[in-house]
Amino acid sequence: MEFPKENFSEWYNEVIEASGLVDKRYPVKGMHVWLPYGWQLMRNIDEYFRRVFTEHGHQEVYFPLLIPETEFKKEAEHIAGFENEVYWVTHGGLTPLDVKLVVRPTSETAMYPMFSLWIRSHADLPLRIFQIVNVFRYETKQTRTFIRVREVHFFESHTAHATAEESEEQIRDNIEIWKKIAEKLALPYLLVRKTDWDKFPGAAYSIGAETIMPSGRTLQIATIHQYFQNFSRAYGIEYLKEDGTHDFVHQTTFGMSERLVGAIVGIHGDDRGLILPPEIAPIQVVIVPIVTKKKEDVLEEARKIEEELRGFFRVHLDDRDNYTPGYKFYDWELKGVPLRLEIGPRDMERGQVVLVRRDTREKLSVKREEYIDKISELLQSIQRDMRDRAEKEMMSRIKRVESIEEIKENGEVSMVYWCGSEECGHRIEDDTEKKIIGISLENHELGKCIVCGRETDKMVYIAKPY
Amino acid sequence: MEFPKENFSEWYNEVIEASGLVDKRYPVKGMHVWLPYGWQLMRNIDEYFRRVFTEHGHQEVYFPLLIPETEFKKEAEHIAGFENEVYWVTHGGLTPLDVKLVVRPTSETAMYPMFSLWIRSHADLPLRIFQIVNVFRYETKQTRTFIRVREVHFFESHTAHATAEESEEQIRDNIEIWKKIAEKLALPYLLVRKTDWDKFPGAAYSIGAETIMPSGRTLQIATIHQYFQNFSRAYGIEYLKEDGTHDFVHQTTFGMSERLVGAIVGIHGDDRGLILPPEIAPIQVVIVPIVTKKKEDVLEEARKIEEELRGFFRVHLDDRDNYTPGYKFYDWELKGVPLRLEIGPRDMERGQVVLVRRDTREKLSVKREEYIDKISELLQSIQRDMRDRAEKEMMSRIKRVESIEEIKENGEVSMVYWCGSEECGHRIEDDTEKKIIGISLENHELGKCIVCGRETDKMVYIAKPY
Repeated sequence: MEFPKENFSEWYNEVIEASGLVDKRYPVKGMHVWLPYGWQLMRNIDEYFRRVFTEHGHQEVYFPLLIPETEFKKEAEHIAGFENEVYWVTHGGLTPLDVKLVVRPTSETAMYPMFSLWIRSHADLPLRIFQIVNVFRYETKQTRTFIRVREVHFFESHTAHATAEESEEQIRDNIEIWKKIAEKLALPYLLVRKTDWDKFPGAAYSIGAETIMPSGRTLQIATIHQYFQNFSRAYGIEYLKEDGTHDFVHQTTFGMSERLVGAIVGIHGDDRGLILPPEIAPIQVVIVPIVTKKKEDVLEEARKIEEELRGFFRVHLDDRDNYTPGYKFYDWELKGVPLRLEIGPRDMERGQVVLVRRDTREKLSVKREEYIDKISELLQSIQRDMRDRAEKEMMSRIKRVESIEEIKENGEVSMVYWCGSEECGHRIEDDTEKKIIGISLENHELGKCIVCGRETDKMVYIAKPY
Repeated sequence: MEFPKENFSEWYNEVIEASGLVDKRYPVKGMHVWLPYGWQLMRNIDEYFRRVFTEHGHQEVYFPLLIPETEFKKEAEHIAGFENEVYWVTHGGLTPLDVKLVVRPTSETAMYPMFSLWIRSHADLPLRIFQIVNVFRYETKQTRTFIRVREVHFFESHTAHATAEESEEQIRDNIEIWKKIAEKLALPYLLVRKTDWDKFPGAAYSIGAETIMPSGRTLQIATIHQYFQNFSRAYGIEYLKEDGTHDFVHQTTFGMSERLVGAIVGIHGDDRGLILPPEIAPIQVVIVPIVTKKKEDVLEEARKIEEELRGFFRVHLDDRDNYTPGYKFYDWELKGVPLRLEIGPRDMERGQVVLVRRDTREKLSVKREEYIDKISELLQSIQRDMRDRAEKEMMSRIKRVESIEEIKENGEVSMVYWCGSEECGHRIEDDTEKKIIGISLENHELGKCIVCGRETDKMVYIAKPY
């Protein structure tokens, strides 16, 4: 069975289901069951989050799921942005609660009352924490696995700093962290500053990492927010400065979610199913014994190989009895295992194994004396090549255009200049029925606003986002 | 500052707060914030769960938090047991939900509708899955950190089997798993079968691992439930047998929670604070440089030691500048780090370090050439000794008694024979205002029921449980 990727939406849904990442039949719309293979993939990503954020001076915590209405409503823009999409707990048993509880849609309003207790003086700063939790949004739009769901597996870091400058430094560090994560997941991205009407509710400004799916639509896969003192004023998070005066702290956050899995599925997969980046694949090497004859000998050798590789790679031996090697090839290709190792009687005679790359389907025979090094090299190449191919493909979906008409006609992503005024911005969005995805953080050249013709350095991407 | 453990309840609350495990000031009663140190401890335990359950053939999954009322209400005993203590989500945004959602108090009713889709034939059995999630109970009794809270960090495994015999085999395997976990946490326990009126709602029978806290009250720290076909009938989990007929599957579960942390705190701690078992301590060895003179030299040496130990142990160098060594000793003793390594100018001259056990406060000097082996040995001794001391202490709190009067007077745990009849059982509980904690799984001797005098092999423990 093949999964033609041309019809992307259908392909996406089918591959997720067929490859065993999740089961979508859970009886609440927009909530799915993570199956062992999908959950292991998500957990590998989580573990990398833990590693990289710890290296960058963050500590992991856990804040409660339920937030009292009274705390939730302290920051005006924030509540306005979320109140239509939160789940409310109103009863404990048969008893109506005195104070209703919000099921966290994100954790600012759970954390910041505690920050105001924790932070007393400059010696308590900077504070850098993160948590990996599920958040909940009562989505009214069409749901789509990993991309728009009602229970979202979520990463959030929150920092507090003495000065605006230090919080800006943190934003830069967050971008460095993001670059490492994108590398690990082999995901290409555009770094943009969101428009004022599209920033996070309560933020001073928001930065998005946006990728482009094969459908030509953009997907926001990470967001970094600068709050400055917007929340600290609302939650009274003050500290004693060295000069004896008090000031409110400056805050930033960094959010990512299971959307990263959606991006990996959509961007790397092909007509045969998933292709997972070796760095985070639950299984890096699958061993398939070719057991047409001398069955026991081959199986024994396969087990020996599994043993030898175990210390170096995440390896799995498919020793299922009632499946042909051909069926197993198909199965592990669908699941996107980066490298397949075949061992048959002929290979044993020759003291070799056969290695097959999932991404290029290239096949090569390797001597047993050097196969650990070779596998290691191949996994590195696969990781690098996946990233390069995806980068090239993403860039090919971006077109520099000169008119509103061209934006409308472009099924993928348009690149134009925009003066930055709300008036021209809304005009672009209304006339094209698309969105300004954000202002490029990397462009420094000048151009003319596509609406008013004024000169500007704001180069923007315009597309239909997920 | 000392924490006298004589007044256990007060000691327990103070030590948890002072040692930085959690912050109890979160503005919802019975929900607390896990601080980095406490969360790392919990996560180390979780990682061990993952390892041991995977070794025993279980796979990790994740099921949604919210359960439709319609699914929740399918098993009559189960719903009766839980309906007064679940949180209800009734609104999404401002919209009342068509079907109310339960915030999971445990996941039978989330999982089993999916089991009925997954399990088709005997080839799909056994099914063994687990998840590590938080569960929610609207506790009306007094809350107590880790022991009785409204948001509970929870482990649950669920299995399905073709025959009753195989599900009984799973129960025995669950007990084997539990023994490994208790070993890892250095926790002593009594294995008991719960009375019929105290079993899990919906279970055929329940087995509890019960430990005894220094207060003399028992704490249930693990439960293993045999459901047989109680849930599979309610949820239609049927499979095709090899003979072509259909049958309902037989199910078991195994649950544990953050109560394990409560037990570790309560059982192992002393007047100086926590004592954490080396196997799961976030920090196994803390290095404290003794920096009265030659500060830079000593710090450099301490860093070298940290580097050398890092590959072998979870190690932390306390290089804080404005604290005395004495303050640091106090601080890490409070946090329960099993082993302290001191390095000062004199130690450097002699090519040695000083090691201090947290549990016995024993101090010894060790040559640098052999210190890795020595630390390794010491951590093993600490783990073993903690377990042995705790076991001995627990056993000393159990008293064989002969009359209802003696049970009433005993401030700790009483051991008596009980014929097994509900009548005699309720009589014991009502007259003593205590509970039958359960029937010993290990006793095979005969005795006479303390109420009716009939001969029986049911030896029971009676106490006030948490």
